[in-house]
Amino acid sequence: MPPNGLPRRADDLRRHNLGVVLSHIHRDGELSRAELTARLGLSRSTIGVLVSDLAGLQLVSAQVPTGGERAGRPSHLVGPREDGPYAFAVDVDVTHVCIAAVGLGGRILARQDVPLRPDPTPESVQALIEHSLAALGARLPDDAWPIAVGLSVPGTVTDDGTIGFAPNLGWHDVPFGKLLRAAVPRHLPVVLGNDADLAVQAEHQRGAGRGCDDLVYLLGRVGVGAGIVVGGRPLLGHSRRAGELGHSVLDPSGPACSCGKRGCVETYIGDKALLRAANRRTSVAEVVAAAMSGDATAQAAVQSAARWLGHVVANVTNLVNPERVILGGSLGHVFTAARQTTTEAIASSAFEAMSTMPQLCTPGLGEDSSLLGAAELAFAGLLADPLGYAEQHAAARAGA
Amino acid sequence: MPPNGLPRRADDLRRHNLGVVLSHIHRDGELSRAELTARLGLSRSTIGVLVSDLAGLQLVSAQVPTGGERAGRPSHLVGPREDGPYAFAVDVDVTHVCIAAVGLGGRILARQDVPLRPDPTPESVQALIEHSLAALGARLPDDAWPIAVGLSVPGTVTDDGTIGFAPNLGWHDVPFGKLLRAAVPRHLPVVLGNDADLAVQAEHQRGAGRGCDDLVYLLGRVGVGAGIVVGGRPLLGHSRRAGELGHSVLDPSGPACSCGKRGCVETYIGDKALLRAANRRTSVAEVVAAAMSGDATAQAAVQSAARWLGHVVANVTNLVNPERVILGGSLGHVFTAARQTTTEAIASSAFEAMSTMPQLCTPGLGEDSSLLGAAELAFAGLLADPLGYAEQHAAARAGA
Repeated sequence: MPPNGLPRRADDLRRHNLGVVLSHIHRDGELSRAELTARLGLSRSTIGVLVSDLAGLQLVSAQVPTGGERAGRPSHLVGPREDGPYAFAVDVDVTHVCIAAVGLGGRILARQDVPLRPDPTPESVQALIEHSLAALGARLPDDAWPIAVGLSVPGTVTDDGTIGFAPNLGWHDVPFGKLLRAAVPRHLPVVLGNDADLAVQAEHQRGAGRGCDDLVYLLGRVGVGAGIVVGGRPLLGHSRRAGELGHSVLDPSGPACSCGKRGCVETYIGDKALLRAANRRTSVAEVVAAAMSGDATAQAAVQSAARWLGHVVANVTNLVNPERVILGGSLGHVFTAARQTTTEAIASSAFEAMSTMPQLCTPGLGEDSSLLGAAELAFAGLLADPLGYAEQHAAARAGA
Repeated sequence: MPPNGLPRRADDLRRHNLGVVLSHIHRDGELSRAELTARLGLSRSTIGVLVSDLAGLQLVSAQVPTGGERAGRPSHLVGPREDGPYAFAVDVDVTHVCIAAVGLGGRILARQDVPLRPDPTPESVQALIEHSLAALGARLPDDAWPIAVGLSVPGTVTDDGTIGFAPNLGWHDVPFGKLLRAAVPRHLPVVLGNDADLAVQAEHQRGAGRGCDDLVYLLGRVGVGAGIVVGGRPLLGHSRRAGELGHSVLDPSGPACSCGKRGCVETYIGDKALLRAANRRTSVAEVVAAAMSGDATAQAAVQSAARWLGHVVANVTNLVNPERVILGGSLGHVFTAARQTTTEAIASSAFEAMSTMPQLCTPGLGEDSSLLGAAELAFAGLLADPLGYAEQHAAARAGA
């Protein structure tokens, strides 16, 4: 490509435009050809050719809407093809793994949630994923084809698909991408991302962060992390380790943390801390439910977590000043149950609180932000160059 | 401009290229025409015309180097004109104001440092600046001409030049830009920025942050703040309040802070905290000097500040994962005196410390990062469109 980022040759331009059209349909679902023409500023006939190309590649379906007869020819509706390409998305958490097939448009076509035993090895998680991918693939239409495996992990990742450090799994420098690549069907590409980074991307694309370009997603599970979007772009950091606030210290004389320090963020708002404070063994959702129905111990645990959550949001807000903060995982449950406590804690500890107070909300994608972010990661290559991907797929089938 | 950001018409293109050439000379000082030709990918004759235009506008001087005779025609050297345009730069701190005239190329041509009385009013600071600008202007060559006033303030600013909140000045919602505009010579434009935001810009442009696109500048004065660059762009935040970490809490049972909370960052590493701990009344530089020459009280104060500084750097690193952190103002003195203490504190509290540890350094521009950042702010309009600025200047002179 030339320096101004625009494609040079006619063929490049066609490939580029195919990706742009497909990206709009992927993000927004079914669109009329008239709407695509208006959005892209291309001629009706060019859009017609592009849509026809994408349909020929079996990526989209184009049909004339039925009913509601009006004068003039109705515009074709273009949508993701039901039996077209799909992404395998895997959300590895400390206590369970969710494996899904996600279609163009972000719809979950099939899923499995599998609990993990304590202290799982990379090999056991790899075997579990391998088994689930095969089972899921078998449940999909024969014509549908997987394009890549996107993986969300509760730790830092490097560009080559290595998990640098996943503290709550006890994994250090695990080449998980390579490990998994050897086990997945058809040698699909395997791409990895950090769970909170993927969550904020998915929410920015199609969840509670749509249209908001200064966004933070605080993800609370066993670990706590942040995904950050600044000016519409992901803030990943110099070595892709931004947002790792779970072991920042809130109180140096606080509870002992597994990392050796005291008073880390996770000792106040991580799942284990909440369960311990509530004297429960199951889930934060259960603690919150107990609090809502009057259990005093659960209420105290939730109130304390909600207050500390406010201090964490204040610290993040002081530093990156987002417009909106999405509270995900357990933190969403805590916030829903004790919204006022969190808001008051932010007001009492944010700099210039009334002016900087971010909007607070829960995820638009429920518990699936990281999972769907992993699917986005897997779709990225197809969306950038649909023709190239389809050509590869045809070559792979021919070779199979 | 068309959507791709490139100028459309020939005249726009010329204006654009004049700005690009001037920006290179502004950042890097004297350059040969051959070097400019290579950097910009334009023809020798185009560069010749652009340089000749800039010389005609009295912005640059172009001369054939003397001495070192070699075969062939030597390339003209193009540099900022000594008696050309200059920026007024004003660095308002809580205890003093520095006012300077800064030439193209970032050279300080003249300066005044004026101490402030405690709790200064906006009007008194405005009067002081007005007086100093006139005095400085009188010391410059007759042909030199001021283009704008750039102002660095220890607080938050809004797009319209209002100071939102400067806690250590006790100023709230002060329309300081408007106030100053009425008082400056020739109704020059007045532009405002936050001190740490300007400091990181200046260091990124021509100081210790050159070539480093994931950068944090921690500025310690009476207040403490951070300027952040992510992927080469300033992180200012949704409402331009990013980096306000002075009142984030390090220890909820820590010393009482002027803001009403306990254990804020400023109560550990702000100037007043350091002076109090060292039982001194003058400057942090003096405390550090006393520590270096064996004063036990001063040593304890510096060691404590250095340790807390490490925790602050760790918190910032966990969240934004910069490649380099510049420690400026008093924090530079503390770091220079107790480097190992700070480094050990980061290592003990950063997530995955060995991998995320940022490079630490002191400012390349000494105490003048914010001042020179204010000058950059003032130069921005000229650098974007030198011809437009020169035309305005001519019109203003004709009208004077």
